[in-house]
Amino acid sequence: MRRSSGAAFAIGEACPFRRSTMNCEDLTLHTDKYQVNMMYAHWKMGTHNRKAVFEMYFRKLPFGNGFAVFAGLQRIVDYISKLAFSEEDLDYLRAQEERYEEAFLDELRSFRFTGTLEAVPEGTLVFPGEPLIRVEARIMEAQLVETALLNAANFQTLIATKASRVKQAAGDDTLLEFGTRRAQEMDAAVWGARAAYIAGFHATSNMRAGMMFGMPAKGTHAHAWVQAFDSELEAFMNYAKALPDGVTLLVDTYDTLKSGVPNAIRTGEELRKEGKELQGIRLDSGDLAVLSREARRMLDEAGFPDVKIVASNDLDEHIIMNLKAQGARIDTWGVGTQLITAADQPSLGGVYKLVAREKDGRYEPVIKISGNLDKVSNPGVKDVYRLIDRRSGMAVADFMTLRGDTAPVEGAVLKLVDPAHPYVTAEAEDYAAVPLLKAVFRDGRLTGELPALDEIRAYHAGQLKLFRQPHLRKLHPEPYPVAFSESLWSLKTEMIQRVKPRTGGR
Amino acid sequence: MRRSSGAAFAIGEACPFRRSTMNCEDLTLHTDKYQVNMMYAHWKMGTHNRKAVFEMYFRKLPFGNGFAVFAGLQRIVDYISKLAFSEEDLDYLRAQEERYEEAFLDELRSFRFTGTLEAVPEGTLVFPGEPLIRVEARIMEAQLVETALLNAANFQTLIATKASRVKQAAGDDTLLEFGTRRAQEMDAAVWGARAAYIAGFHATSNMRAGMMFGMPAKGTHAHAWVQAFDSELEAFMNYAKALPDGVTLLVDTYDTLKSGVPNAIRTGEELRKEGKELQGIRLDSGDLAVLSREARRMLDEAGFPDVKIVASNDLDEHIIMNLKAQGARIDTWGVGTQLITAADQPSLGGVYKLVAREKDGRYEPVIKISGNLDKVSNPGVKDVYRLIDRRSGMAVADFMTLRGDTAPVEGAVLKLVDPAHPYVTAEAEDYAAVPLLKAVFRDGRLTGELPALDEIRAYHAGQLKLFRQPHLRKLHPEPYPVAFSESLWSLKTEMIQRVKPRTGGR
Repeated sequence: MRRSSGAAFAIGEACPFRRSTMNCEDLTLHTDKYQVNMMYAHWKMGTHNRKAVFEMYFRKLPFGNGFAVFAGLQRIVDYISKLAFSEEDLDYLRAQEERYEEAFLDELRSFRFTGTLEAVPEGTLVFPGEPLIRVEARIMEAQLVETALLNAANFQTLIATKASRVKQAAGDDTLLEFGTRRAQEMDAAVWGARAAYIAGFHATSNMRAGMMFGMPAKGTHAHAWVQAFDSELEAFMNYAKALPDGVTLLVDTYDTLKSGVPNAIRTGEELRKEGKELQGIRLDSGDLAVLSREARRMLDEAGFPDVKIVASNDLDEHIIMNLKAQGARIDTWGVGTQLITAADQPSLGGVYKLVAREKDGRYEPVIKISGNLDKVSNPGVKDVYRLIDRRSGMAVADFMTLRGDTAPVEGAVLKLVDPAHPYVTAEAEDYAAVPLLKAVFRDGRLTGELPALDEIRAYHAGQLKLFRQPHLRKLHPEPYPVAFSESLWSLKTEMIQRVKPRTGGR
Repeated sequence: MRRSSGAAFAIGEACPFRRSTMNCEDLTLHTDKYQVNMMYAHWKMGTHNRKAVFEMYFRKLPFGNGFAVFAGLQRIVDYISKLAFSEEDLDYLRAQEERYEEAFLDELRSFRFTGTLEAVPEGTLVFPGEPLIRVEARIMEAQLVETALLNAANFQTLIATKASRVKQAAGDDTLLEFGTRRAQEMDAAVWGARAAYIAGFHATSNMRAGMMFGMPAKGTHAHAWVQAFDSELEAFMNYAKALPDGVTLLVDTYDTLKSGVPNAIRTGEELRKEGKELQGIRLDSGDLAVLSREARRMLDEAGFPDVKIVASNDLDEHIIMNLKAQGARIDTWGVGTQLITAADQPSLGGVYKLVAREKDGRYEPVIKISGNLDKVSNPGVKDVYRLIDRRSGMAVADFMTLRGDTAPVEGAVLKLVDPAHPYVTAEAEDYAAVPLLKAVFRDGRLTGELPALDEIRAYHAGQLKLFRQPHLRKLHPEPYPVAFSESLWSLKTEMIQRVKPRTGGR
């Protein structure tokens, strides 16, 4: 029986639970086994070097929101840059029940991503059906990366979208991400914190996220600080002595209004004698509407109108909106569990579908049919443009067309097919057409620099200004149109007809 | 403006998105900033070396289940073993707005976990209110580890519990974990796969999880394999040629019954000519009850009664139970999104509370009061025993008592106080008392080996046999009693009375 021996846990040693000596950061095998089996089967058939094009997209917006906020690209770029099978990976593959041939493992030994990857920039507002990432590569490469790519893009896009909803409810108030202890393991905590920051959060409590991404980290003290001393007042005074320039006191350990707030005020008075000011108090339980109004009154009456009130305790966009409607006097919101897990819909169903395959030296579009009609895929390699009305400066529709078709000529009249209602066709004129997909890797090489996190955050804020309010509202938003070109529409309808002969059934 | 330069993404380089050169696997700063601020404030006050005892527990079972399955310890042990501040960590701390004193950073430079950590073994059935992890350490150590410890234990316990529910619905059928693409980032995928395996899943699709933990990894092919060839039949035949010993064919790319199953049968006939047998078909859309019954009939009639039917597509315990009730003929269940995100309740609210602090050389119990009465903590350092009835061999109650009280003497009559209904007292006699907490670290050293994953899985299966069916059922389970000793009950009631004077308010 295998055992992880105690000695294996010596400080500094990597990954003791891993049976090999490999670096746990190696994500090359972070893939579903069927990807490897398909790589192998293609290799056996001699088809592994054929080019293929896959597109990543989602079918349905989360939370009933009117848009999603794309995130995850930084993680994907890092993952793809480092793709390489180590000898330990190959040993693991060698031991599988599939008994892959040694020559296949040799092929993997020199495996690198040599394809082209295009993606919408992080922070972009995105909509159902449109390609967010397009991978054009040898089919064995394109297949391997599917799982990790979806894993990162699905989660980070989900959290950025949830954070955007919270931001809308909080307006210009300060938003702190507090979710680590309830996050779905450690990567979710740090990448989720980053996604929230992109969507407008101001800081995270997670210091590793702060260090990894260069985003602000914030924090004060917990109930345990108060409990560690003989009285709440002693605890507050000691905290103020230790960190006089950043004192926010948690006031609900025993009794918020009878003990916590009065003791905070006494501490603020002591601080003031030292020429310092109390920064805030934090409420973490009870009726936040009532407590915050009463605490505000007590602070104001005691001469502390500038002390901020911070609230936490299972907050989300609905509770924040309700608290504001009740006249809560809260300046800063610490949002944890509900945000970091996207509690009301904890997954985004993004998919990665083959849209074209190389045949006889050229690309042939492919389609997937399904008993569930909304799972029928859109065939062909597609480009997607955002059409901006020149007069208003506002986005009016996204426009998907087949690559190789003439790109929309800015200003020329464009026919838009609504795929859900194809009998209604609209036209666009006097627009600017902004291509959404940008090359990130071309032939395996990064095309340039990725934007810094603060640039992404600013870009996202700018994106929001492009859309009319009815598309942005949290409840029953007006759907933003994602139109097909006539050529794309024709191809799809024609291919659905053509499917039967392709099945080869008897 | 900072930029991550393209060149920084060279293959093999660690963590390019990190601003420093540090290893991304270093989790020492995977903590909330307020922990560091409390460490600093204690250090400033000279109280940082005082001992403290914290207990991790949850208040409410997830999913309306009758029990939870504890998991996460392996990850926590690894994390704690490696705790150490690198120079890069200290540089990051030095740059914070708190302006920590250099002498504090010096103190951190030699920081190691030197405390004692006890925990219930992974795979144990656990209940609300009882300590699952107990940390006894210098307060600055105990404080630092809170965040990561909760992050791991909350998520992994949640997923093991969800998996246990799925296992109950699936009975002896084969269960495959298929969740990576919808998991909440990459750690969730691999640690969630491990948690599912503990609770009885048979394999995962994630190869990295398979390699890290030595668990079986399984997989066949996707729709993209079928789409990559001119016809479905050609795709099936090629797959069978490449991997003749493990052929499970996905039959829903075009039309399950008219094309997929007939083509699978033809492929099975070809395989048989080579002396091989088709292993299975997989359904991934449509009405799984109808399709599986019809596919079974077709396979049987064609002479393939041993071909297994695998199903996937947003399955969870409810859908599996319903499909079985409808007479679905499914042998193997691929469970993804709903399991790996615990979709119906994506977080476990486990907490980590100070229960005792060192004062004048001895421990003093502490309590946290709250406006939400179920958030009042249980004071004092507690042991927890599982009482096993000697006649039936079944668990009858868990029993929490203060450490230092006489341990339950096996066979002696024991008075049990139900904390929710303290006016009802029960007695236990003729029981064996099994202590649930086992020392994992003592004075900073690992006490021994952790069990191997397959041992944990077997231990969990044994745990289930200890409990009566009414506690185990998925719907409206009978609550399993977690009783207080009289001493613990007295301490709690007395401390609630004593709180007011401790607040120090005016």
